[in-house]
Amino acid sequence: MSMAIKNPASQATLRWQGSLTGSLILIDQTRLPEELLEIECRDVPAVVEAIRSLRVRGAPAIGIAAAYGLCLGMQTLSEEKGAEAFYSSVKQFADQLASSRPTAVNLFWALERMLQVAQQRSKSGSIAEIRAALLAEARAIETEDRQICRALGGHGAPLIEANSSWLTHCNAGGLATADYGTALAPFFTAKQAGQQFHVFVDETRPLLQGARLTAWELHQRQIDCTLICDSMAAQVMKEGRVQGVLVGADRIAANGDTANKIGTYGVAVLAAAHQIPFYVAAPRSTFDFKLASGDLIPIEQRHADEVAQGFGRRTAPAGVRVYNPAFDVTPARLIRGIITEAGIITPVTTEQIRATFGG
Amino acid sequence: MSMAIKNPASQATLRWQGSLTGSLILIDQTRLPEELLEIECRDVPAVVEAIRSLRVRGAPAIGIAAAYGLCLGMQTLSEEKGAEAFYSSVKQFADQLASSRPTAVNLFWALERMLQVAQQRSKSGSIAEIRAALLAEARAIETEDRQICRALGGHGAPLIEANSSWLTHCNAGGLATADYGTALAPFFTAKQAGQQFHVFVDETRPLLQGARLTAWELHQRQIDCTLICDSMAAQVMKEGRVQGVLVGADRIAANGDTANKIGTYGVAVLAAAHQIPFYVAAPRSTFDFKLASGDLIPIEQRHADEVAQGFGRRTAPAGVRVYNPAFDVTPARLIRGIITEAGIITPVTTEQIRATFGG
Repeated sequence: MSMAIKNPASQATLRWQGSLTGSLILIDQTRLPEELLEIECRDVPAVVEAIRSLRVRGAPAIGIAAAYGLCLGMQTLSEEKGAEAFYSSVKQFADQLASSRPTAVNLFWALERMLQVAQQRSKSGSIAEIRAALLAEARAIETEDRQICRALGGHGAPLIEANSSWLTHCNAGGLATADYGTALAPFFTAKQAGQQFHVFVDETRPLLQGARLTAWELHQRQIDCTLICDSMAAQVMKEGRVQGVLVGADRIAANGDTANKIGTYGVAVLAAAHQIPFYVAAPRSTFDFKLASGDLIPIEQRHADEVAQGFGRRTAPAGVRVYNPAFDVTPARLIRGIITEAGIITPVTTEQIRATFGG
Repeated sequence: MSMAIKNPASQATLRWQGSLTGSLILIDQTRLPEELLEIECRDVPAVVEAIRSLRVRGAPAIGIAAAYGLCLGMQTLSEEKGAEAFYSSVKQFADQLASSRPTAVNLFWALERMLQVAQQRSKSGSIAEIRAALLAEARAIETEDRQICRALGGHGAPLIEANSSWLTHCNAGGLATADYGTALAPFFTAKQAGQQFHVFVDETRPLLQGARLTAWELHQRQIDCTLICDSMAAQVMKEGRVQGVLVGADRIAANGDTANKIGTYGVAVLAAAHQIPFYVAAPRSTFDFKLASGDLIPIEQRHADEVAQGFGRRTAPAGVRVYNPAFDVTPARLIRGIITEAGIITPVTTEQIRATFGG
């Protein structure tokens, strides 16, 4: 179950409230920019619902939400069951959380990390110790994400030249992470350093994360930006108004092929046609080294109503078929560089990625 | 002034009701697909408002609407003024109608044709004769448009191979013309001939003419179609699901550079990157031989609210800047052929265009 909190004091994408026993507080991103509303999740189904319906979204943020979701699940377990039975329940909760969305790998990465802690501790520790260790791990994932986003900002900011203009698609900002973002982090860092630049924001149909979330974040930080429809990106490129493209990622294969919000691949093709460099910003946790290339990344298909009835109003005739893939895959050859916490990977090749992460 | 008519018997995009004294009846396309509603225009300001607010849109249709609009204006003039004063008023009405939208050339072409008739007749004829001649000319423009659309359908239909799948952007269907359409005409003709094929429909932000109008027209004629967001076009091309692109045009320069709904240029670049042929369908009246190339075509800029508040609901934070060009220009080099009433122009060059129209 979840509860709504109006006019929250905090503007954190997500936060754990309480100590060992607590709840997960999330900004309900489906209500932005009309309303800044938090919801309080108290059990696993509430977190699953929040991820599935995109109240919390963005690859790093849903990883953190899932880690805390596991902590919520464990609060509901009886301590009398014994450590082995407890671990088995933890795995069931992890499966429920993992089923919420299929494409972003950070979700599975965070749950895997939590399960490893649970497994190690379940051999020797008491249930209270396991719970404490898991909450500490979830907090660590969140803290690391904050640090990683700052590192991405630091590595990416030098790309943002004076008076340059950029294009971004979807939202890979503070709302997609614990805070500060991946693709938006270089903009935030450059802005703090006093750099002058401009950002075109693709509105990002069907769910308008660009218009609703990225424009909101850039506007709040007083970064000069202009909202466009996705269909206008080619035109602003043709007019010479874009010097670089910077987007986030939901999963990156071992060779650098990158899954991100639907529309990203098209932007990459358009950037190539206009000789504009195309960058991805993502932490190591977004890389899936088990997948050799991007065609192995599962792509979530979402409901037709997001396209045909996306604004509380029917925009297409009843009965018309809709295709609604939530992501697409941009081949590595179209990506000039991937900005990570370990530096900018360029050229984007299997070898260079492995070398960067010391693999 | 205009009046709304609920549940109309006719489904004509536009029609003249009455004889020498009459009114112009239009489907209010801003209400589709939720509601099929006609409006009755009785004077020039009503027609200007209908064109400007896109109740009637599509290059050929606004040309016809403007021609009838001129007839409406003349009804309000006193016959006592004399032929010369009458002609001067006609020119003022034409200026008002011409100011409604800047990009589609058919508007100016139709008004020019009407003015020539008015000028010729004002030398010798009575005012009653001038009015009769002008209504006859407007009717001729409408009738010719119907014939031209059928001819486009006939020339384009052979391109629609069995089991092929096409992509179209915006609406260049019956609703953009007197009936039958330009880009949709080959589909309608192929369907009538029993051909099996499929059409992907770009929803066409910001005003969703693809979702609201094209999907509606194709669905009504039981043509197999799938609605996508504009940002998904690249992905369906990458998946090998598109064998050809077919769009309309608002103005074509002498060299074949083509202005059409914003997003068209991006689709053309994507089609080229995926080796998919890109076709334009347009009548001779859409060619502007006075403009040597597409960079001379004026591009209408529309209001920010179409992007930021497009569905009766605010989708972007207040105060965020918006760029909203209504059209873009696709260079001739990206166009495999232009389907006209005189045949398919290919390759698309100044010389080939001139040769086709016997210029």
